[in-house]
Amino acid sequence: MVHVTTKIDRADPADVARVGQYTAATIHEAQGRRGSVSPAITPIDRNMSFVGSAFTVACAPRDNLMLQVAIHYAQPGDVLVVQAGALAEAGMFGDVLGNACKAKGIAALVTDAGVRDTQELRALGLPVFSGSISIRGTVKETLGALNQPIVFGGEIVRPGDIVKGDADGIVVVRREEAAEVADLSAARDAHEAELIQKYWAGGTTIDLCSLTDVLKAKGLTTDIEESA
Amino acid sequence: MVHVTTKIDRADPADVARVGQYTAATIHEAQGRRGSVSPAITPIDRNMSFVGSAFTVACAPRDNLMLQVAIHYAQPGDVLVVQAGALAEAGMFGDVLGNACKAKGIAALVTDAGVRDTQELRALGLPVFSGSISIRGTVKETLGALNQPIVFGGEIVRPGDIVKGDADGIVVVRREEAAEVADLSAARDAHEAELIQKYWAGGTTIDLCSLTDVLKAKGLTTDIEESA
Amino acid sequence: MVHVTTKIDRADPADVARVGQYTAATIHEAQGRRGSVSPAITPIDRNMSFVGSAFTVACAPRDNLMLQVAIHYAQPGDVLVVQAGALAEAGMFGDVLGNACKAKGIAALVTDAGVRDTQELRALGLPVFSGSISIRGTVKETLGALNQPIVFGGEIVRPGDIVKGDADGIVVVRREEAAEVADLSAARDAHEAELIQKYWAGGTTIDLCSLTDVLKAKGLTTDIEESA
Amino acid sequence: MVHVTTKIDRADPADVARVGQYTAATIHEAQGRRGSVSPAITPIDRNMSFVGSAFTVACAPRDNLMLQVAIHYAQPGDVLVVQAGALAEAGMFGDVLGNACKAKGIAALVTDAGVRDTQELRALGLPVFSGSISIRGTVKETLGALNQPIVFGGEIVRPGDIVKGDADGIVVVRREEAAEVADLSAARDAHEAELIQKYWAGGTTIDLCSLTDVLKAKGLTTDIEESA
Amino acid sequence: MVHVTTKIDRADPADVARVGQYTAATIHEAQGRRGSVSPAITPIDRNMSFVGSAFTVACAPRDNLMLQVAIHYAQPGDVLVVQAGALAEAGMFGDVLGNACKAKGIAALVTDAGVRDTQELRALGLPVFSGSISIRGTVKETLGALNQPIVFGGEIVRPGDIVKGDADGIVVVRREEAAEVADLSAARDAHEAELIQKYWAGGTTIDLCSLTDVLKAKGLTTDIEESA
Amino acid sequence: MVHVTTKIDRADPADVARVGQYTAATIHEAQGRRGSVSPAITPIDRNMSFVGSAFTVACAPRDNLMLQVAIHYAQPGDVLVVQAGALAEAGMFGDVLGNACKAKGIAALVTDAGVRDTQELRALGLPVFSGSISIRGTVKETLGALNQPIVFGGEIVRPGDIVKGDADGIVVVRREEAAEVADLSAARDAHEAELIQKYWAGGTTIDLCSLTDVLKAKGLTTDIEESA
Repeated sequence: MVHVTTKIDRADPADVARVGQYTAATIHEAQGRRGSVSPAITPIDRNMSFVGSAFTVACAPRDNLMLQVAIHYAQPGDVLVVQAGALAEAGMFGDVLGNACKAKGIAALVTDAGVRDTQELRALGLPVFSGSISIRGTVKETLGALNQPIVFGGEIVRPGDIVKGDADGIVVVRREEAAEVADLSAARDAHEAELIQKYWAGGTTIDLCSLTDVLKAKGLTTDIEESA
Repeated sequence: MVHVTTKIDRADPADVARVGQYTAATIHEAQGRRGSVSPAITPIDRNMSFVGSAFTVACAPRDNLMLQVAIHYAQPGDVLVVQAGALAEAGMFGDVLGNACKAKGIAALVTDAGVRDTQELRALGLPVFSGSISIRGTVKETLGALNQPIVFGGEIVRPGDIVKGDADGIVVVRREEAAEVADLSAARDAHEAELIQKYWAGGTTIDLCSLTDVLKAKGLTTDIEESA
Repeated sequence: MVHVTTKIDRADPADVARVGQYTAATIHEAQGRRGSVSPAITPIDRNMSFVGSAFTVACAPRDNLMLQVAIHYAQPGDVLVVQAGALAEAGMFGDVLGNACKAKGIAALVTDAGVRDTQELRALGLPVFSGSISIRGTVKETLGALNQPIVFGGEIVRPGDIVKGDADGIVVVRREEAAEVADLSAARDAHEAELIQKYWAGGTTIDLCSLTDVLKAKGLTTDIEESA
Repeated sequence: MVHVTTKIDRADPADVARVGQYTAATIHEAQGRRGSVSPAITPIDRNMSFVGSAFTVACAPRDNLMLQVAIHYAQPGDVLVVQAGALAEAGMFGDVLGNACKAKGIAALVTDAGVRDTQELRALGLPVFSGSISIRGTVKETLGALNQPIVFGGEIVRPGDIVKGDADGIVVVRREEAAEVADLSAARDAHEAELIQKYWAGGTTIDLCSLTDVLKAKGLTTDIEESA
Repeated sequence: MVHVTTKIDRADPADVARVGQYTAATIHEAQGRRGSVSPAITPIDRNMSFVGSAFTVACAPRDNLMLQVAIHYAQPGDVLVVQAGALAEAGMFGDVLGNACKAKGIAALVTDAGVRDTQELRALGLPVFSGSISIRGTVKETLGALNQPIVFGGEIVRPGDIVKGDADGIVVVRREEAAEVADLSAARDAHEAELIQKYWAGGTTIDLCSLTDVLKAKGLTTDIEESA
Repeated sequence: MVHVTTKIDRADPADVARVGQYTAATIHEAQGRRGSVSPAITPIDRNMSFVGSAFTVACAPRDNLMLQVAIHYAQPGDVLVVQAGALAEAGMFGDVLGNACKAKGIAALVTDAGVRDTQELRALGLPVFSGSISIRGTVKETLGALNQPIVFGGEIVRPGDIVKGDADGIVVVRREEAAEVADLSAARDAHEAELIQKYWAGGTTIDLCSLTDVLKAKGLTTDIEESA
């Protein structure tokens, strides 16, 4: 007997949208270097990006039964976060389920297992991030959990957490911190834009990061002083 | 003394062409989830695909002597399937041999070792699938087998078997099953096209895959029933 | 106390430019199959290539302090070669430092650690080669060496050595051998162009590589002789 | 500012002792195939085994500051479960800290990073399980969490959970399920002892597991029936 | 419908015993450097060794149903060679089935998947070689082949082939070559014993391997000649 | 034409012996966390340890010709450090060459490739550290360098450097720093012995490492203060 949860609390769509304006790297830094999913999980096309609410799925290795169930219950804007075991390379998702997702308005599919039909999925325009690309088929045998906290790419993902992915990777934002993280991300982006402008104006990596005193305190000396 | 086989039986070209109409994933499923080569062997460009008759080559690690011999004896439409040991990263194939293959009408080169000159090979339009990309050179020292059954990417490939590759991976079809597998692939494609149409018409992943009873039998319950 | 070297001898710019005309694979072969960096270090975009003088940097894992210092002291045309330990996946370089490099005329950034902001770096047009792509941030805590010989991707790189990278990988050329290696590369390229022409004119891989006698001496026999 | 938790709820010592009577494999099976930590984390000596309450520690990679803090606050019978990032091979624990643990009555040290002084630790008799053995030193720079839920070897470990390790691996038991899991483990052990006795009495793997009907239902036929 | 083969031809027991007198390394060399199984498959105790006739089993990943069936049909002296997919870490074999094997006189169990209860298996004295040690349980769901040629550790193993394993690894000998390989192994052993005796009598690695002329022909010079 | 160096400068035997009194971990720490070889290179028996002068050897992958030459020219007390490429798993060294080494008084053999005859080598008592254990044979075809600086396990090893190995790994000490490193190691050992004594006398990891102020400065607070 397995009892699954289909109804979850999601972040305010406005907060989700605000978080989604920033890159995964910016969000990760802005929230204190937390929430980074393993870089082994990559987009099938580096132009893909997404943001949405995590709808978590725990599948048995090489078994996509619960993914089928999850698509049934997920809501528009959800990101299916599908854990199937770090070493499971089977292609558990392809263009048929891809169309099912797209038709329902699901925002993205991310999994630590493999996917297939990648050219068709690109054409379909559904963001898909996976641990591998593999033609190997799966079975539909084993029940598992929906919307329980799962370990995904080394991070804990809770249902309703915000997940953002882009060419550089995936970051998880706790639902209750969404607004604050969006603010911090905006501030970081503004600071970085300013830094870039200063570099082009001739600023240096030591001056702009205020490293002169730090380096002196740590004991750095150079051959420039010698020759001075 | 090494005696090599250069003359092999190949599948009927019409059957090869029929099999080639389907994706590697579809063929793999259609023939009962058999024949998938390791996903660690990938195309140098995801737009590449091929189909052809396997001309098998066993090279020593970091030694491409037998590949040179194989190109000499291969026929137009053949796929060179070159085993050189799972961990051999040397770049055993580049644009010079690529031109030799293209000039002879060879359909594709697949290897578990490395290749190089990948930009030139893309421009040349020869499908190349490999275990790595590496500039490291090879020697031409060691004799090996041609057209013996080999282990390639974890699968047994026999000379004359049909090999199909695309963005998702490589599948091997036994020569004597070609016509049947083409039929089964066609049926599977038709079924999937129908499923996709139904998803867009509002069908669900539980209904269309007839999972309602299956899930009940396995003991799945949800929080929807609770609240009903 | 750490004393760093900022002033290094570089190869003649004309020699650097000459070496840069050839692919990494050609240079590797021309200098006697030496100097290949691990194929695990790859470009973030396969259309990227670079040539320049190595400015070597040794960072602690997940710490990019010395990279900041290195950008400050590097010269236009330098390639920053940043060692941070083979398993360090942290994203130690992104678009802010990328702009700092570009503004200074740095030729490329290569590292065995991770990088991020890869879409922005592509748009910026700075060649970046790395061991991974990761959003994970780094600290700025630990002093390390500048312009000492380092082990990078399994090769020894000395400051001022010439480094060439392209879609197939990275090769290191000893500064004092630059002119000679450029000559040898030119000769190899000419020879390969000639070979390609001959293959299209019907030459075979056995004849053009003068393998007939070699194969006979090694004891190769074929089923063609049998049937003759 | 980092605020750490030093006071945690632990399972009843009698329950911990009862769970500890069974092997990790038996417990894993008995609780429904849950709780297995990655097999990449292994004992430094296969004769080592342990059971205790998890005292969780999150260290930065190559930094053992929080491990020092954890030893200070841990209680006799605790198992230090130290997460430092899956790829961090540094030797963060050796015989000096090993003596500190042993003197305090700590039950075991498990980490996904590396350890060193393994011969001395064996002589000391402290069970140590690690992701690697490495002489590489660590720093004491970065604050981190104590007694928060962590991801360890792909499993969520909460402070106060019961952890059992032996030659075959590590299993985590939820604190609140300890008594029930001990009962289920005892039942499983009894069943297995009975099975072993029956095998030596001539029972077969098909009969004793009641597979005859299962195999028939799945469609298995053999060459024995043919020849009958 | 799956039809399995239980009756196979085996090598003459006298030949099996003769092959078993030599180490896996010696047999591998004696038969022309053929037949070596991947070194990733290792004994659970390095003092274990075995020889016997291969009884091949193809299991689905994380599913040991066919192993149960195989034990039922195997004969005394057989070695169960169980393929379950290179990445399947599940512990598919433990002390209960170990007792079933021992009671039947099965010679050894080798698998590319994981095993558990390793301390108990050592005590039992059954040679077990595996791809990993893992407490993770398996299911009994999927039919598969018995006594078909399989790919095991990168080698083709046919039912009835002779398999020898020891601390250094596993080698496969074709059944029809058993007597010849035993002769060649004996000759190699005699030659090596003689070499060892000569080394202790002061012979050198260059003289005893007749390398002086070889090295001169290849162009080796030393700083000894210089100073002469 | 390859010219090899057979005559090298070695450290004073008394210094080598003094360095050898300390563990690899202690030496690594004492010399400022430098010189650690990759932990992937491990002893075939954890009771093995060695110290000696590096006699460096560069072999082609799966080719042990230069190892044969090296044994010929090495001196009693030398450690053969044999680089053959990180991924080369072939068994390039076994008991025949082991006897040749032992007869000559060679101190140890370390390689990033594989070895075999490990039970015989244990019985022989020659310390052997390797990247793998493999029965796979090698050829004797390719010349390479002797006593050039090589990259070994990610570290630069120069001929005549001191190499120490034990159960925890391998460390390289620059020849000219031998006496100083021995002194620093002695001091470190004395300090650690004192620490261990204090831990057993009730000292704590925070007090003995003087972390109280450090932790306060970094901002650590605990639930103990809260409840005070």
